[in-house]
Amino acid sequence: MRVGRERLICRKPIKRAMRRGLDALLSPGSVAVVGASANATKIGNVVLRSLSKGSYSIFPVNPKEKEILGFKCYESVSSIPEAVDLAIIVLPAETAVKAAAECVTKGVGAVIVTSSGFSENGPAGRALQDRLASLFEGSGTRLLGPNTMGVLVPAHGLDTLLIPAEKSPRPPTGSVAMVSQSGAVAIAFLEKAAAFGMGISSCVCVGNKADIEECELLERLAQDPVTDCICMYLESFSDGRRFMESARRVSALKPVVVLKSGRSGAGARAASSHTGALAASSDILVDGALKQAGVIRAYDEEELVDLARVLAYIGHAEGDRVCVVASAGGFGVIAADYVESSDHGFGLRMAELSEKTRGDLAKVMPAFSSIRNPVDLTAEVTDEMYDAVLRALQADPGVDCIMMSLELQPPNVTKGLVDVAARRRASGSTPIVVSAFGGGGNQAVLGGLERSKVPSYPTIRRAVRAVAALVDRGAYLKRQK
Amino acid sequence: MRVGRERLICRKPIKRAMRRGLDALLSPGSVAVVGASANATKIGNVVLRSLSKGSYSIFPVNPKEKEILGFKCYESVSSIPEAVDLAIIVLPAETAVKAAAECVTKGVGAVIVTSSGFSENGPAGRALQDRLASLFEGSGTRLLGPNTMGVLVPAHGLDTLLIPAEKSPRPPTGSVAMVSQSGAVAIAFLEKAAAFGMGISSCVCVGNKADIEECELLERLAQDPVTDCICMYLESFSDGRRFMESARRVSALKPVVVLKSGRSGAGARAASSHTGALAASSDILVDGALKQAGVIRAYDEEELVDLARVLAYIGHAEGDRVCVVASAGGFGVIAADYVESSDHGFGLRMAELSEKTRGDLAKVMPAFSSIRNPVDLTAEVTDEMYDAVLRALQADPGVDCIMMSLELQPPNVTKGLVDVAARRRASGSTPIVVSAFGGGGNQAVLGGLERSKVPSYPTIRRAVRAVAALVDRGAYLKRQK
Repeated sequence: MRVGRERLICRKPIKRAMRRGLDALLSPGSVAVVGASANATKIGNVVLRSLSKGSYSIFPVNPKEKEILGFKCYESVSSIPEAVDLAIIVLPAETAVKAAAECVTKGVGAVIVTSSGFSENGPAGRALQDRLASLFEGSGTRLLGPNTMGVLVPAHGLDTLLIPAEKSPRPPTGSVAMVSQSGAVAIAFLEKAAAFGMGISSCVCVGNKADIEECELLERLAQDPVTDCICMYLESFSDGRRFMESARRVSALKPVVVLKSGRSGAGARAASSHTGALAASSDILVDGALKQAGVIRAYDEEELVDLARVLAYIGHAEGDRVCVVASAGGFGVIAADYVESSDHGFGLRMAELSEKTRGDLAKVMPAFSSIRNPVDLTAEVTDEMYDAVLRALQADPGVDCIMMSLELQPPNVTKGLVDVAARRRASGSTPIVVSAFGGGGNQAVLGGLERSKVPSYPTIRRAVRAVAALVDRGAYLKRQK
Repeated sequence: MRVGRERLICRKPIKRAMRRGLDALLSPGSVAVVGASANATKIGNVVLRSLSKGSYSIFPVNPKEKEILGFKCYESVSSIPEAVDLAIIVLPAETAVKAAAECVTKGVGAVIVTSSGFSENGPAGRALQDRLASLFEGSGTRLLGPNTMGVLVPAHGLDTLLIPAEKSPRPPTGSVAMVSQSGAVAIAFLEKAAAFGMGISSCVCVGNKADIEECELLERLAQDPVTDCICMYLESFSDGRRFMESARRVSALKPVVVLKSGRSGAGARAASSHTGALAASSDILVDGALKQAGVIRAYDEEELVDLARVLAYIGHAEGDRVCVVASAGGFGVIAADYVESSDHGFGLRMAELSEKTRGDLAKVMPAFSSIRNPVDLTAEVTDEMYDAVLRALQADPGVDCIMMSLELQPPNVTKGLVDVAARRRASGSTPIVVSAFGGGGNQAVLGGLERSKVPSYPTIRRAVRAVAALVDRGAYLKRQK
């Protein structure tokens, strides 16, 4: 079942239209919290509090309470008088299975089982998970988890994550989707996204993947018009072959970035005890298959966020010829190294500037500055100089991507540089990626760039890594033609 | 000339004892600012302001002013009635040379020429620099620069950096020294150090290195009792062979971390136009020579700060057997990958835990948690559990280093974890390196760990990179025995 933009951004609860499957999971009209608690330190209270900001009916379920946080409380799921699209169960494993059975009987659209103690916990846990999964088979009710933090959909105010937003800042609504096999990695991803102001369309923690798994979500997100980039943290593939086939189809439409852990022997064994993932095949095989499917690989959650931003905001570069612009010579040198070197670098090319470009640059740059690549604007740099230089470089057909090292300390640059970068980004087609330096003003500048969809990074390495992802993506799309 | 701890931390101005050479540069009793300005937007004012917080006599020099910022102003350097240990010249290149000549005539101890427009600026600039350098030859007065931001010695309040502290936060006093061929890279290094609360002993920007260069500073810092780790950003070597010989001697005493740029063709050409550095030899040769000299190589200023912290606080590890402890399974898996993998990892070993250790862990850990490496404490983790687990791991002779993934979200951990880590660090000899996650509390926790000399990092990759540096350093020291 697929959903269009008009439903994903719908904010009014629609109580009558019962939702099924992933629709029920990602844009429910009604949500039950089974195991809701009046005690503020309990997860059953945290989840209810987080959910209370959303735009749907809420039904806490707890046989011992009449009301929690102002919501009428129900004795059981079956005693809720209305249809329930989504139920989130925050109870110990055994009790959770009973509650899940009740949800299936009631015909709930989707159920999130947060409890641990299933397949990640030896043979007894695996048996319990099998029992849980069998409840859902052929029922029409879908299961997320068990052993999961659930979902976050900022556009709906839907937030089942088990950690309150005070403890872990949430990102705004945006165009990056995240699917994660680890709640902690999802939380770290979301915190790093929030720090940049990168918005997300949805985040789904798949946990032990007894039913809903990464492949179905990947296909769904491919069709989601508000998602421009799909990120995943995976410790295992539910069905490796199917995943690679899906990923190949989806990569043709939008970028897919995967952090696949369990790459090492110790990592694979640990993954198996963490989410009950089956022993992985050799990472060399996985790596090759991912590459062939057009998937861009990240190695930690920081890189996942870094790449998501550049791919969602820019998409791809037409080639690998990079021009570096800096007002601090040292940064220009380090950036050139990262562009060209294969060891501790990304094996791209430094663009040869055309005669015309060199002439245009000479007109605006200080007499003693360097008219070559990297372009060194020196401490004499002004906002206007940046504007003219970026304009000239964007007009040069020999430049595929511009890496701008933005230093805020020179006396004649102002925060207006953000507008310069935004204007150049909007009017020229050559992508601009920024590495930003400079003390106090840094955070405000980074925020301004983010709102203008100019991806910026706090180190040169990360900025050039982002450029390399654009180049890889462009090369992949060219090969598909 | 070398200086002992008692002089470096001296805070009282000693007006009579004239200082020479690097003593005059790093712990002057009197400082002249040639080109001091009453205009708050001018660098000549910024520098005077920054210097005014220090513990030495200050003499602004400006023929047009009587007084600036409350300091009596002098018409020229020669008209200053007292001995001047250090003169900082903030004037355009040609005028700066004249002022430098006057400083030499007066017998100033050391002169910093901040002006650009010298060897980085073509043949005319190179000729001017030769003229400048010749003034100092045989004079007993030393020259730092030209084209430099000068020095920062927090213990003395000595700060000639051309960017005010409001625009670029300074780190506190500490045990890491920095020598940089680029002012901007030094500033970025200092800002990143300040963000962690990492203290520095001194930072010297060598600029065009017409006189004082990296080799002399390296030898000096080797003998400096308050410096535990020496960092360098270099675009060129003044004398490669001499540098490697010095570095080998110094590496036997304390860790030396070098960010050498100009690794690529484009980078090397850019370095030459930035600080007039001569074309570098192949980076493969440089890399080999640095390794042989025991130098640890970093590739950007973030890594430089990351490695400085772990090497200054811990020094080295006895071997490469790492134990990972996490309360979030996903982080344990990713950390194990970074430990073991050679590709996107550091090729270390995951320690085999002894029977005794496994027994000790089983006593304190939740029944369903993993008693293997990575150790998964699960969301049931408490401060006490961390304490007992770290204690058991430190007692295991098969564990050379502990990487602790510290998550602050689990309900039963508190900020007391900082004390746990500090106590374990102080009482056990096995090094502990932390990767810290967790929203709002993160910054306070990172600060607490820093004060306890427990190096902590915001990503797993960076934490394991730090562990690898300890292992490399340990292996190097073993080979020297």
